[in-house]
Amino acid sequence: LLRACDGESAADPTTMFAGIAALDAAGAGDVSYLERRRYLPRLKATRASAVIVTKDHAAAVPEGVIAILAAQPALAFARIAALFHPAPMARPGLHPTAVIAADAALGPGVEVGPFAVIGARAVIGAHSAIGPHAVVGENVVLGEYCRLHAHASISHAICGDRVVLHPGARVGQEGYSFTPAPDGSYVTMPQLGIVRLGEAVEIGANSCVDRGALADTVLGPGTRLDNLVQIGHNVTTGRGCVFVAQAGISGSTTIGDYVTFGGQSGSAGHLEVGSGARIAAQSGVIGDVPPGQDYAGSPAMPAKSVFRAIATLRRLSEKSPGDKR
Amino acid sequence: LLRACDGESAADPTTMFAGIAALDAAGAGDVSYLERRRYLPRLKATRASAVIVTKDHAAAVPEGVIAILAAQPALAFARIAALFHPAPMARPGLHPTAVIAADAALGPGVEVGPFAVIGARAVIGAHSAIGPHAVVGENVVLGEYCRLHAHASISHAICGDRVVLHPGARVGQEGYSFTPAPDGSYVTMPQLGIVRLGEAVEIGANSCVDRGALADTVLGPGTRLDNLVQIGHNVTTGRGCVFVAQAGISGSTTIGDYVTFGGQSGSAGHLEVGSGARIAAQSGVIGDVPPGQDYAGSPAMPAKSVFRAIATLRRLSEKSPGDKR
Amino acid sequence: LLRACDGESAADPTTMFAGIAALDAAGAGDVSYLERRRYLPRLKATRASAVIVTKDHAAAVPEGVIAILAAQPALAFARIAALFHPAPMARPGLHPTAVIAADAALGPGVEVGPFAVIGARAVIGAHSAIGPHAVVGENVVLGEYCRLHAHASISHAICGDRVVLHPGARVGQEGYSFTPAPDGSYVTMPQLGIVRLGEAVEIGANSCVDRGALADTVLGPGTRLDNLVQIGHNVTTGRGCVFVAQAGISGSTTIGDYVTFGGQSGSAGHLEVGSGARIAAQSGVIGDVPPGQDYAGSPAMPAKSVFRAIATLRRLSEKSPGDKR
Repeated sequence: LLRACDGESAADPTTMFAGIAALDAAGAGDVSYLERRRYLPRLKATRASAVIVTKDHAAAVPEGVIAILAAQPALAFARIAALFHPAPMARPGLHPTAVIAADAALGPGVEVGPFAVIGARAVIGAHSAIGPHAVVGENVVLGEYCRLHAHASISHAICGDRVVLHPGARVGQEGYSFTPAPDGSYVTMPQLGIVRLGEAVEIGANSCVDRGALADTVLGPGTRLDNLVQIGHNVTTGRGCVFVAQAGISGSTTIGDYVTFGGQSGSAGHLEVGSGARIAAQSGVIGDVPPGQDYAGSPAMPAKSVFRAIATLRRLSEKSPGDKR
Repeated sequence: LLRACDGESAADPTTMFAGIAALDAAGAGDVSYLERRRYLPRLKATRASAVIVTKDHAAAVPEGVIAILAAQPALAFARIAALFHPAPMARPGLHPTAVIAADAALGPGVEVGPFAVIGARAVIGAHSAIGPHAVVGENVVLGEYCRLHAHASISHAICGDRVVLHPGARVGQEGYSFTPAPDGSYVTMPQLGIVRLGEAVEIGANSCVDRGALADTVLGPGTRLDNLVQIGHNVTTGRGCVFVAQAGISGSTTIGDYVTFGGQSGSAGHLEVGSGARIAAQSGVIGDVPPGQDYAGSPAMPAKSVFRAIATLRRLSEKSPGDKR
Repeated sequence: LLRACDGESAADPTTMFAGIAALDAAGAGDVSYLERRRYLPRLKATRASAVIVTKDHAAAVPEGVIAILAAQPALAFARIAALFHPAPMARPGLHPTAVIAADAALGPGVEVGPFAVIGARAVIGAHSAIGPHAVVGENVVLGEYCRLHAHASISHAICGDRVVLHPGARVGQEGYSFTPAPDGSYVTMPQLGIVRLGEAVEIGANSCVDRGALADTVLGPGTRLDNLVQIGHNVTTGRGCVFVAQAGISGSTTIGDYVTFGGQSGSAGHLEVGSGARIAAQSGVIGDVPPGQDYAGSPAMPAKSVFRAIATLRRLSEKSPGDKR
């Protein structure tokens, strides 16, 4: 257990544990962890048998509770949790109701659930799991250990290993691009690109990633979308980007590595957002964002400017005539 | 009819009606109602045979139209409407294409539609209807008179009676929580809790409710989500909360009874929103909200402060130099 | 090719081309176009064999590259693209796994995919394609050349020709309307109307259009919804309206012709938005919008007022005491 979590403890290394739990729910035999300082009172009162903390909080662990010291308690806890609750593996086998094209190529150990549809020439990497009702379009390529949950659909896409589509995720459909014709109708612009999902990309429930128009839409390795996120055509991201629920990125915006978009935030199209930028919840990016910057507000500005503007407005409106009511 | 709607009328109690309709669409034989004051002109012009109004508007009902007096005309109208258009009941029977686990337990009168999937050890209460393509995961428990519409999916969940999932609703998938590892990858935090949906909870089309991490996600009895709403892991609500379309609540926020979140509003995680609070459309809650308060704006503040700030800014910008153009 | 795109060129009319591509990706044999002025450097460097430009940019086309002159290069390019990549047609035939009601009426040339469900008395116009897992409810009418992509669902609806539902689109489910009863529960208001989709309407992936309550929800011909858009019950639009991703319109709002709602924008219910109005991304309409106006901000105001207010606030906060830090 210590090996798994890269932790240290003075306790008897043969001690056995029964499970994991939050500080306030743990009982005898459970391992827990201190998630944030404000839960120190819960640490005092916990009934857990062991708690993972940083060195700084070692002294706060109550007597009789084993202290496990780790640099990142959350990471250590996640790794211990995986010992007790290993991630589900594909259960190899093809459900008799699945419709699998004769020329689709399925690797060893693949699971295909009830009513799944796998199109012509699709390639499913070893040990991947295609959930009930998932639809894999023609020519789609999935790497190894991928997982499509119930009702996910994917077309016009190439995915690395360990890609996950949560229920109802939509990947590879046509982008939103058209031009007006003289008769008042709209003519769809060609949508011929694909979606490229890097290793370990995860797409949240009911989120959408459109295929590229003339080039491709690309999400870099480790990028994770929460639920109900929208990624327009030709967006590209680097590694490890984070899009919290209901964020939306318009077409052709280029995003660096480890960028965070908060919940319900958005970006206009054809922009550049530098690596390490953090876009606050509900903000709206309308121009390029330099690397490493925190932006907030709609329209989005450097966060400091936004906080100052809010404070200024509050001060002005408090002393305004309207305040005398 | 008067009994159903708890109304009063001086008209002949043996009068028969043919249907219901809006004031401006109603014809002979129809029952209608006055929805709001601004529709008084429509009341004057209506061809309905009877109109439900409060006592205050009794005198505004045109001659020849029967006035039905009720304290809440909308409620009375809804109850009369249910006489003419009863809510559809489950049509008992299992479609031959459905895949139902041998050890799932289905109550009497259950309807299971084409291509529905019901997992191992799931329990479906009496008179529930599982729509076409709906997927019920292993161990899920549904109460009586529940209804899953087309393409809804539910896993890791226990539901009370009369719960409704509208088309494409997603309940019980993994929450969005992970921690960075030293190599730059993300490690998913354990997501082991379930979703508990109280009696008569409704989840709108394509809305998402994530399972809890270590504790559970809980929506109290009568809570209703509109379409495309996001509820993060470990959120809990009391009774009768209302989440209008595209609202989003981040993880671990605790919400009281009869709280309203307007369309496209949001809340950060780990907050408390008191009973009876009303959060305006598009506002963003970033701190605790006391009971009974109206909040607005992003970041959200008491609504009065927001309105004052908007008025102040408008006044200042109107007399600013930029105004002389 | 010139005939298709209504363009002019001095080049040999028997020249043959191999395909289409963006300026920076094109090679020998490709036709490309100048999308916007800022891509003039890409025009200089392109390896395309021909480029579509307006007369103004004819001189900027490099030597050796054929200039095709067109009033709207994007439109001309879209039409040429359709020659090389024609829109997929329905592949006539009914997949053996589809469940089609005996009294549904399917026109000639209809394609029905695996696990599609077509309800009683539904009418599917000639040459329409019903994708895998799509669900068409009882009595639904689809025109000719319609296309439902994977997992789309539609009920209580009548559609014109060439309507497209992208993956996971939800059309015709119950609207979000209820009234409180004295016991604290909610009673659903009658939802008896349908959805009417005009010719060539497109509904984006995972977008939702609710059926009307007493009247109908109507989207006019050519209207296009991006992904994750919400249209409440009884909303009506004229021709050619545009709703960018994650926009949301509350119930009973009336929208004219060629109105644009930007990404993540919203409108309250029971309002009127005039023809040609443009609502900026993330703005929130809370009152009627006159025809032809640009609105922005939350709450939405004429865009000029919003820009002035933002400039005023920036100026005030820059010279405020807080600025001295």
